[in-house]
Amino acid sequence: MSELTPFPTSEYTRRLERTRERMREADLDALLVTDPANMNYLTGYESWSFYVPQAVFVTHDHDPVWIGREMDAKSAEATTWMDDDHVHFYTDDYVQSPQDKHPMDHIASVIGEYGYDDRSLGVEMDAYYYTARSHARLIDRLPEADVDDATLLVNWVRLKKSDAEIEYMRDAARLAETGMKAAVETIDEGVPESDAAAAIYGGLIGGTEEFGGDYPAIVPLMPSGDYTGTPHLSWSDRAFEDGDPVIIELAGCRHRYHCPMARTVSVGSPSPEMAETAEVVIEGLEAALDAVEPGVTAEEVEAVWSDTIAKHGIEKDSRLGYAAGIGYPPDWGEHTASLRPGDTTVLEENMTFHMIPGIWYDDFGVEISETFRVTKNGAETLADFDRDIFVV
Amino acid sequence: MSELTPFPTSEYTRRLERTRERMREADLDALLVTDPANMNYLTGYESWSFYVPQAVFVTHDHDPVWIGREMDAKSAEATTWMDDDHVHFYTDDYVQSPQDKHPMDHIASVIGEYGYDDRSLGVEMDAYYYTARSHARLIDRLPEADVDDATLLVNWVRLKKSDAEIEYMRDAARLAETGMKAAVETIDEGVPESDAAAAIYGGLIGGTEEFGGDYPAIVPLMPSGDYTGTPHLSWSDRAFEDGDPVIIELAGCRHRYHCPMARTVSVGSPSPEMAETAEVVIEGLEAALDAVEPGVTAEEVEAVWSDTIAKHGIEKDSRLGYAAGIGYPPDWGEHTASLRPGDTTVLEENMTFHMIPGIWYDDFGVEISETFRVTKNGAETLADFDRDIFVV
Repeated sequence: MSELTPFPTSEYTRRLERTRERMREADLDALLVTDPANMNYLTGYESWSFYVPQAVFVTHDHDPVWIGREMDAKSAEATTWMDDDHVHFYTDDYVQSPQDKHPMDHIASVIGEYGYDDRSLGVEMDAYYYTARSHARLIDRLPEADVDDATLLVNWVRLKKSDAEIEYMRDAARLAETGMKAAVETIDEGVPESDAAAAIYGGLIGGTEEFGGDYPAIVPLMPSGDYTGTPHLSWSDRAFEDGDPVIIELAGCRHRYHCPMARTVSVGSPSPEMAETAEVVIEGLEAALDAVEPGVTAEEVEAVWSDTIAKHGIEKDSRLGYAAGIGYPPDWGEHTASLRPGDTTVLEENMTFHMIPGIWYDDFGVEISETFRVTKNGAETLADFDRDIFVV
Repeated sequence: MSELTPFPTSEYTRRLERTRERMREADLDALLVTDPANMNYLTGYESWSFYVPQAVFVTHDHDPVWIGREMDAKSAEATTWMDDDHVHFYTDDYVQSPQDKHPMDHIASVIGEYGYDDRSLGVEMDAYYYTARSHARLIDRLPEADVDDATLLVNWVRLKKSDAEIEYMRDAARLAETGMKAAVETIDEGVPESDAAAAIYGGLIGGTEEFGGDYPAIVPLMPSGDYTGTPHLSWSDRAFEDGDPVIIELAGCRHRYHCPMARTVSVGSPSPEMAETAEVVIEGLEAALDAVEPGVTAEEVEAVWSDTIAKHGIEKDSRLGYAAGIGYPPDWGEHTASLRPGDTTVLEENMTFHMIPGIWYDDFGVEISETFRVTKNGAETLADFDRDIFVV
């Protein structure tokens, strides 16, 4: 175990065992993990290197093997728990090569060296960064392998956290609070949106007295004014104006664990419609949080939200929330359980979700969210921040 | 054209014409653009929505068509130059669906509605976010289409910038200077790395008196101390120690245009080896910049660097640089021309590159880089920042 690995080796061994169980259930001799969050989860690997193909190769017989770019091999040695002979690399002439060379050729050859070129191999068909060409090259170089889709296999293992993981998420909650506090203190009439974004980063990354923050997998999103109804805009250098609603969605991040949070700010007094909408959102959020306990399903939690807002004549057809934890750009969601109709995932202790109710109209929107852990007594929200519209 | 579109429609029309020329050369009736940078380049589309499948559909006959998630359709209307009837969306039940629904099913159906389901269609096989499953679903739903690999087709169009694009890159250079200045002023013995990262964000995003900055496609990278040789580490909350080398690689970003820059800081006096290495890096950087002019090839520029450092007995086998401009996570590089052996791209006016020479040893490394534009008189470096080791 290296000095930069965030957990003891025993934690990774347990994760690996649970992963191998699922591999056995899926009749897989081996698994090629390319989702950076899954790579981190199984090995501790951490680096901004996912812009080139890289993978962790998992079998039943030996420790995971990291395969990536030569200049990142040192990061692999510095951050993963495995011995250094489990680090393999391709040279720089494979990187974005105009010649007929692709990093996946090298990854396939390592799989061959380990004797798995004619075995059953799972790949993450829908993972970010596992491109169509990566897949085409892999199967071209491994004609004897039986390649199956194992998308989300590791993600499902991640859903239920260990206590050690929860501790990092609590740290992330402190960072989320610090970032949101900076937002509320900075936003004001005449202040450029970009200054608010800079202040948020100051809070999220500068952190607390005890620790600083990592970069979150998504930048602070802060649609405001006429664009409050466009949830994934970031910021411009426009100055806030009196009457602007501002939605802020951010996450604190610690050792790649996220605690997302959204709040809504009003520059000047909110309109009566906006204040009323906020009350509905808070009522629905709290009712849904109250419904959380081990044994209920994800869709049952969502139904409580839907029923609550329906009493006010409001319908909303996007997800109420999703599992969250480790993340790399472009997402801190885990892509497994969602709080939405049709999702029958049964909640268990130490699953963690971001519940993000929002109601948008043409001229304003309100979002107020919480990240929670399932405990035997119900939902424990990780951050402590007023559930209200902040008037500045 | 919408109020948030960063260029006049005429700029997009020219880009589209150059793209269609390349489509004709490749015998393509249509092109499905999924790289977020290419989507932005052709339409102005801007949103943190690339964590779900989305595309711009380009033909010879009509304006580009945006297809994405329902909640992002408003962003498409707000940021693209096309009429709103060129915005199509899929509903939220397609997002990370446990049912057998995939956004690419919907994208395929839109292609069918436009009558291109039996035509020749280019796709970006190796673009980020175009996953193996996205491709498999697309060809499954378009069995009559003749699907070809058109990776980098639009990227090559992007290589040569317009004067309007250069202006945004100049703005980005101001932001890079502000961010780097914040780094040099903050880093000191006892200061946590995370505080330096927060200060850098303050500079990059808080920006200048005239404008703020957008989020860069890559976070500030700042390997330091024992890990200076691991180029893609970001930061921790470790405090800087006397004797630490710190490499800082960052980019200013304005309307998604980047100006990357790297500098090296030494906490306390640098070792004689480090000072010497810095001199070699600067000599090689300046010699290579002097070699830039229209008509020379990318590999010829790299050879000047290699020859210069070889005189000092140093060899380096990774790329000296790459084309840079518009970027989304995880990369601000354009993935076309690289300054490296074997790349015979002929430099032309208004091409822009990040030249990033670096020399790493086991216990320290030095990087000092410049982003430059090719002019008829040679390389014009966009940022103005001392080329030196900064001793703090």
